[in-house]
Amino acid sequence: MEKIALAEKFAQFDEHWSPRIIGEANGQYLKIAKVQGEFVAHIHEHEDEAFLCVAGRFGIRFPASGKVVELGPGEMCIVPAGVEHQPFADEEAQVMMFEPKQTAHTGAVDSDLTKSVEDQPRI
Amino acid sequence: MEKIALAEKFAQFDEHWSPRIIGEANGQYLKIAKVQGEFVAHIHEHEDEAFLCVAGRFGIRFPASGKVVELGPGEMCIVPAGVEHQPFADEEAQVMMFEPKQTAHTGAVDSDLTKSVEDQPRI
Repeated sequence: MEKIALAEKFAQFDEHWSPRIIGEANGQYLKIAKVQGEFVAHIHEHEDEAFLCVAGRFGIRFPASGKVVELGPGEMCIVPAGVEHQPFADEEAQVMMFEPKQTAHTGAVDSDLTKSVEDQPRI
Repeated sequence: MEKIALAEKFAQFDEHWSPRIIGEANGQYLKIAKVQGEFVAHIHEHEDEAFLCVAGRFGIRFPASGKVVELGPGEMCIVPAGVEHQPFADEEAQVMMFEPKQTAHTGAVDSDLTKSVEDQPRI
């Protein structure tokens, strides 16, 4: 029941594509990340993933259709389970995510960018 | 996989304490509400409830301790299941919530303000 100030949390780290856990509710983690560049395309077979753009702009590419959803501050996208998606950002953006605790960072893809849930610090 | 623009969703209604459903993920509803004045103190016995202040300022009062958490834009509070809480706002504020689909608006309290989940429009 403490206040969680997103700006104060984002000020605590600089790495890109390295989620921090800032809260949990109903078996879901609330996470934040700074993103810039291209992430790996990946699938979460069993978990939906909600994205909120907090600052900057980023996009989510859906390789199956070629569709791209571009998000600015206050804009969201919910990626259903089983749908391949590839986040990217031309410049640094701040992202909030809400997803089940067991959600693997890059799905079944093992990439240099992959952070296990255990490697996602709680701040 | 459509963009959900919070400002565009908030522009669609004026009522206070009347949640709208704007998305779902992992058995949770993503909801928004405009709030002003005092809501009823209530408990969700089995559901945690995540609040994000999108615009304006609002507070959550915890009657058991007398504690008050005040939130401005970009600030959150997660209310654990079983904890009585009473949202309030001196002036209008915009709130986003993330909570299990079955979460009752005012818990077991039946108030003039109570909206059943069926009465919470999807926009």
